[in-house]
Amino acid sequence: MREVAIAGVAMTDFGVSEKTCIEMFCEAACEALENSNLEPRDIDALFLGNCLGDFEEGQAHMASHVHTALGLPIGSPAWRFENACATATVAVRQAALLVGSGVYDVVLAGGTERVSAMETPLATRTFAMASHSGYSVPTGITFPGVFAMAAHMYAYKYNMDLGMLQEDMAHVSVKNHFHAAMNPKAQFQKEISVDKVLKSFMVADPLHFLDCCPFSDGASVVVVASKQKALQMTDKPIYIIGTGQAAGGPVINNPDMTRIKTREVSVAQAYKEAGVQPSEIDLCELHDCFTIAEILAIEGLGFYDFGKGHNAAKNGETRLGSKKTIINPSGGLKAKGHPIGATGAAQVTEIVEQLRGLSGKRQVEGAKIGLVDTLGGEFGTVCNLILRSHP
Amino acid sequence: MREVAIAGVAMTDFGVSEKTCIEMFCEAACEALENSNLEPRDIDALFLGNCLGDFEEGQAHMASHVHTALGLPIGSPAWRFENACATATVAVRQAALLVGSGVYDVVLAGGTERVSAMETPLATRTFAMASHSGYSVPTGITFPGVFAMAAHMYAYKYNMDLGMLQEDMAHVSVKNHFHAAMNPKAQFQKEISVDKVLKSFMVADPLHFLDCCPFSDGASVVVVASKQKALQMTDKPIYIIGTGQAAGGPVINNPDMTRIKTREVSVAQAYKEAGVQPSEIDLCELHDCFTIAEILAIEGLGFYDFGKGHNAAKNGETRLGSKKTIINPSGGLKAKGHPIGATGAAQVTEIVEQLRGLSGKRQVEGAKIGLVDTLGGEFGTVCNLILRSHP
Repeated sequence: MREVAIAGVAMTDFGVSEKTCIEMFCEAACEALENSNLEPRDIDALFLGNCLGDFEEGQAHMASHVHTALGLPIGSPAWRFENACATATVAVRQAALLVGSGVYDVVLAGGTERVSAMETPLATRTFAMASHSGYSVPTGITFPGVFAMAAHMYAYKYNMDLGMLQEDMAHVSVKNHFHAAMNPKAQFQKEISVDKVLKSFMVADPLHFLDCCPFSDGASVVVVASKQKALQMTDKPIYIIGTGQAAGGPVINNPDMTRIKTREVSVAQAYKEAGVQPSEIDLCELHDCFTIAEILAIEGLGFYDFGKGHNAAKNGETRLGSKKTIINPSGGLKAKGHPIGATGAAQVTEIVEQLRGLSGKRQVEGAKIGLVDTLGGEFGTVCNLILRSHP
Repeated sequence: MREVAIAGVAMTDFGVSEKTCIEMFCEAACEALENSNLEPRDIDALFLGNCLGDFEEGQAHMASHVHTALGLPIGSPAWRFENACATATVAVRQAALLVGSGVYDVVLAGGTERVSAMETPLATRTFAMASHSGYSVPTGITFPGVFAMAAHMYAYKYNMDLGMLQEDMAHVSVKNHFHAAMNPKAQFQKEISVDKVLKSFMVADPLHFLDCCPFSDGASVVVVASKQKALQMTDKPIYIIGTGQAAGGPVINNPDMTRIKTREVSVAQAYKEAGVQPSEIDLCELHDCFTIAEILAIEGLGFYDFGKGHNAAKNGETRLGSKKTIINPSGGLKAKGHPIGATGAAQVTEIVEQLRGLSGKRQVEGAKIGLVDTLGGEFGTVCNLILRSHP
């Protein structure tokens, strides 16, 4: 495998948009092309992530329509990927595999999603299609329920008072809102307090409203290229030095929900390929769809021992300015927003900008290595990417 | 790129099924694994094609659920692909690229679809989501309309009487039903007559009901492996010697609908990589979603000059027993059936079995090289694969 790099990155504002999925993707793609000093004719392939375009706006076969709107060459193929919330991450990883193996030189990869037109109950039900329609859906469970169960199991397993865990979780939300307040693309650029989280209404006990990420619209696009090509586009390429991806099934096959097997297997692949340890990761964009999910992730990714991650946010260890690994400096899914098919590429975008030192007020000082972590469905897909700055 | 081969192949019966998409895919996958003397633990990755599982049965994130149902290793990733009717073909091609480049040794690739639970008007509208929701859908057009326009344009461009063209198209349908009558997996194992086609009701002038492929349920799976691995699984590996894939946009960007640019670009890539000419192709499974589509395809693929393909079926040139390239010996989409997300893998399955001499009554004598052609949407994706028998 040859070295693979990222040249340009871009994302739209996350939040509520009047634009279609195709329009949002193209907006981000044009910016990413411009950042990379590329023309559409330079693109060898398009890897488009989208989860629910057919439900959301009656649009399937989206890759071909984006391809035309961007004016890419007919001979440059376009694929659509869907792996629930990990959709854009697996698209970027696939691009990295095909560039690394020499099949393509320059690939446009990312994702787009629009869900704000749906009312919350419909959106919640629609998202639940990522769970198993035979085993999980008939029980009535939706994703807040999945992660509420995980929170209960966490408190039970580690013999914690549930109220204590709720307070620890609230600190995750407060920290991510603190970061998002410095992110001009974030959906919620506003700080909140622990008290406000704990007093927000209950969604699925023990998860309050402000423990949950929002429904969001947005798109994000990444230019993945060989090192040689990337160096022609930018003097600050960011290298993809390790990747991992694992697949599992519905939550019933993962009885201990505090240990997400797919994550442990995926990130182990990525660490091995990159030849780095968790302690070397300066910052991480991870899958905080619910606050408990961030706690599970920082343990599963090896930053904290199992059962010890719950008070990292409370202690300020994962917050900008800490000496430890900074978690979700973008604001994360919780506060930056979570347009499901776009999320992975936006995580990559944040890490790339951080490693280039372009993140302004929320810059992680001296950041050299970053980790992307995205989880899809009932833990059914986890995909990880490790990025390193140009020496 | 190292040599890539296909070991086992399998497909379910095509038609109407009570099974879910996941169940059908697993049925075909188990048979393909058995044919390849493989265990689930031998699979490096799963590439699952599905178009409309969320609409059809409320099931997104299907790749992870199939992965679990099959008992594949957690560390072997699973991706879902969607490129309209070309879905399974692009999944198989992606597998070929990643095996050819040495990333994976053994990949399970294919597709699954269930649409029979939908009434015809809903299914027609749902399929139309593959066209552009901004430009095409608002005009009220659906796919029978797209291909009806193409038929009108063909008759106009080549100065043909429309009634003559309708008769020529009817011969395509008759020929494909003749082939399907010898295919125990086909949806319609029954011969029909030209008179019956011309007397069937009008769907979209000039296309009669029997010019149109059916809505179908089914799945098909292919084991793609390095030559070295394939030779451990079978003494008759079938080689993927050339592939092509092109992307375009909505029909408005393809004003001459008799010349499908994406096909011409895609198949040229495949012929070049394989180093073969159209005249060397013994048999071809191509995208006859409507009878006019077969006529356009045999011209676009280089078997006939433009404007000269319309009477190939009438003259018996594309029928079993002819000395020319046999077209759709399986019965094609028209009579074998067209479960959209599975079609490409079923085309591969037919060619592989033909090249192994296992096709019984519908065997193409002495077949050595076969071509797969699948078209998605309003010509927005075309993907081609050229397969060659083991010397």
